[in-house]
Amino acid sequence: MKFNKVLENIQTYEAGKPIELVVREFGIAPKDVVKLASNENPIGTNPAITKVIRSNADIAHLYPDDSMFELKEALSRKFDVEDENIIIGAGSDQVLEFISRALLNEASSVLMSAVTFAMYEIYAKQMGAKIIRTESYEHKYDEFIEAYHTYKPKIIYICTPNNPTGDATSREEVLKIIEGVDKDTLVVVDGAYMEYAAAKDQKHAIAPTDLLKYENVIYLGTFSKAHGLGGMRVGYGIAQAKLIKELYKMRPPFNITTLSLLVAIEACKDDSFVEASIALHQEQIKRYETFAKENGISYIESYTNFITYLFDENLDSTQISDALLKRGVIIRNLASYGMNGVRITIGTEVQNDVFFRHFAEVIS
Amino acid sequence: MKFNKVLENIQTYEAGKPIELVVREFGIAPKDVVKLASNENPIGTNPAITKVIRSNADIAHLYPDDSMFELKEALSRKFDVEDENIIIGAGSDQVLEFISRALLNEASSVLMSAVTFAMYEIYAKQMGAKIIRTESYEHKYDEFIEAYHTYKPKIIYICTPNNPTGDATSREEVLKIIEGVDKDTLVVVDGAYMEYAAAKDQKHAIAPTDLLKYENVIYLGTFSKAHGLGGMRVGYGIAQAKLIKELYKMRPPFNITTLSLLVAIEACKDDSFVEASIALHQEQIKRYETFAKENGISYIESYTNFITYLFDENLDSTQISDALLKRGVIIRNLASYGMNGVRITIGTEVQNDVFFRHFAEVIS
Repeated sequence: MKFNKVLENIQTYEAGKPIELVVREFGIAPKDVVKLASNENPIGTNPAITKVIRSNADIAHLYPDDSMFELKEALSRKFDVEDENIIIGAGSDQVLEFISRALLNEASSVLMSAVTFAMYEIYAKQMGAKIIRTESYEHKYDEFIEAYHTYKPKIIYICTPNNPTGDATSREEVLKIIEGVDKDTLVVVDGAYMEYAAAKDQKHAIAPTDLLKYENVIYLGTFSKAHGLGGMRVGYGIAQAKLIKELYKMRPPFNITTLSLLVAIEACKDDSFVEASIALHQEQIKRYETFAKENGISYIESYTNFITYLFDENLDSTQISDALLKRGVIIRNLASYGMNGVRITIGTEVQNDVFFRHFAEVIS
Repeated sequence: MKFNKVLENIQTYEAGKPIELVVREFGIAPKDVVKLASNENPIGTNPAITKVIRSNADIAHLYPDDSMFELKEALSRKFDVEDENIIIGAGSDQVLEFISRALLNEASSVLMSAVTFAMYEIYAKQMGAKIIRTESYEHKYDEFIEAYHTYKPKIIYICTPNNPTGDATSREEVLKIIEGVDKDTLVVVDGAYMEYAAAKDQKHAIAPTDLLKYENVIYLGTFSKAHGLGGMRVGYGIAQAKLIKELYKMRPPFNITTLSLLVAIEACKDDSFVEASIALHQEQIKRYETFAKENGISYIESYTNFITYLFDENLDSTQISDALLKRGVIIRNLASYGMNGVRITIGTEVQNDVFFRHFAEVIS
C-alpha cells in the first residue's frame, strides 16, 4: 500500500516513561517509584474532582454533550470571552493538531524556538510542512522577526512558559512579535503552564483577552498542569470566532470523554486547588535552585512546574537519567532535544527528598 | 488567514442530541428524558467498570501509560493476535482518522455504501478525497467491485453491521470483496456493532483473525457499544504490523484518558456484561419488529443494537423526530442521510414502553 509521502519523515513522540514501565522493567514496587518526568501535578487529584468522578462513575456508557455547552460557558466566564471564541481539545495538544491540519501543507513552513514543545514539529511534519527554528530556546523578538521575513511561516509557535526549558517570554515581547507579523501568519501562544508564570511574575502573564483583538492569534490553555488533570485530556483554544469555526471542521465528535467534560466544568468552579498547587511548587522549587547552586549545576530560571538542569561536560544527561530510572526515579532526559540536560518536575516535599538523595549519589 | 482548501468542503458531524439539550430547550427533567439516539448501551455501565472508575478517581492527574501495554496484551489475548497488530484510538473513530490521514490526499477517492457511518465521508473530505458511494445501502459485492474498477479507490469501507441501517454483510461476502480488490486499496472492516451480529447469526460474524492474512485490510472494533463504554472513547484497529506501524505515525500521544485505559483493560476480562446486554437486546428488539408490523411500518432487519424504521409518504421522519423530542424522547432522524426514516436504539423495557406510547400518539 502506498502511504502519504509525509509519513516517511515522521518520528513518533517519545512520552515520558510511565511508572508501569519502571515496575515492569526493573521490578520496583509502584509505591517506590518517583515520577518527576511528565509535569504532572504532584499534589495529586483535586478532591472535588475525585468526587465528581466517583459520583459519575456509572455513566461511562453515555456519550458526552458534544456541544460542550456547560464547559464553554464556564470557560467563557473564566476568561471573559464568548462561547464562540472557544474550541475544546483532548488536551491543548489536539487543538495544535486542528491548527496544523487546517493551515499547513507541503508548501508551508512553521517557526518555533530552538528548543520547545515537541508536538509542534510532529504535527507540522504530519502535514509535510518545513520546520524552521530560531537560534535560541528563548523566544527573542529579533530572531523571530528575522526568520519570519526570511521564511514567511504559516504558523509561529510561542510556548510561554516554554517546555522543556521552563523560561517565559514577557507579555510585551509576545505582543511585539505578534505586531511584527502580518495577518496571514497564525501566532499560537501556548500557555499550558501559564498559571505558574502568572503567579511568579505579572510581566509574564498573558490572558486570552490580551490576544483576542488579533484575528491571527490563538491562545492555548490546558487543565493538565496546574489543574492536575493530565490524565483526563482536556485543553482549549481561544481565538476570534472565525478562526475557531474553521478549526471546528477538524474536530472529531466526542473528542473528550464524558468524565473529562464533567471534571473540566468542575475545575472551572474554584481556583483554590490551583493556588495550593502553585504555593507548594513555589516553596519546593527553591530547593532545586539551592541544590543546583551548591553542586555547581546550571539551571534555567523556571516559570513552570518543572526545572531544567543543564550539565557541563563532566555530566551526561543520558547516563544520569538511566541511572535514576534504575533507582525508580523518572525524570526527563533532554538529549533528544539536543541538550545535555534534564527536566525535573517539582514534586512534593517527600518526592523531592527522594530525588535529591538519589541524584546526589548518581552525580558524585 | 488562508486555510487549506479542503476546509471549504467540510460539514461537521451532527451528533445525536444530548439529554442536556432537551433539558435546556424543552425544560424536561433529565430523569424524564428517554434517549434512544446514540446507540448507547441501555443497561448502563457495567458495575465492574464503575468500580474501576471509583477506585481510580484520584489519579486524574497522571497521564496514562502511552505504550498501552496492558490493554494491548488484553486485546491480543482476546482476539488471538499480537500486540504489534493493534492500534488504540479514542473510539474506533480515531483509528478511521489515522487511516484517512495516512492514505488519502486530494487525488484519492474512497468507496462506501449509499448509506453508512457518516465519519467515513467527513474524515475523507478532511483530506480532500473524493467520495464514491454504491447504489445500495447494503454492501453488495457486484456494486462494490464495479465501482472499484471504475474509480480505483484508495479505501473501501465495509461497515458491518452497518450504521445507521442495521443490516449486516456476511463474512463470505466481505471476504469476496476483499479478494476482489488489489493490495493498493485498503479495505476497512468496521465491526463497531459486531458483537450483536455475531450473536444473532454466525454467518455474519467476522473476527480479526479472519482478516489478518490480508496486508491491505484492517478490522475496527470498539468498547462503545456492546461493552457500554461510549463515554470513555476507546476503540481499536487490528491489522498486519506494517500497516499498524504507519498508522502509529498519526497517533497523538496520550490519545485516550487514564481512566479510559483502565476501564478498557477491565472490559476485556469478562464477557458476561456483553452477553447480558445482547440478551436484553434480543428480547426487546422483537417488540420493535412487532410494533412495526402491527402499524404497517417497514424496518430493516437489524444486526445491531438499534432498529431502523423506514416511512412511506404518509409519515415524515423530521416531523416525527421533532415531535418526539418535545416529549423528551430522542431518536435519530435519518433525513440527513437522505432517508425518510429513523434510527432507534433498543432501550430497556421501560424506555421502550415510553417510546411506544409516545410514538404511537405521534404517528396517529
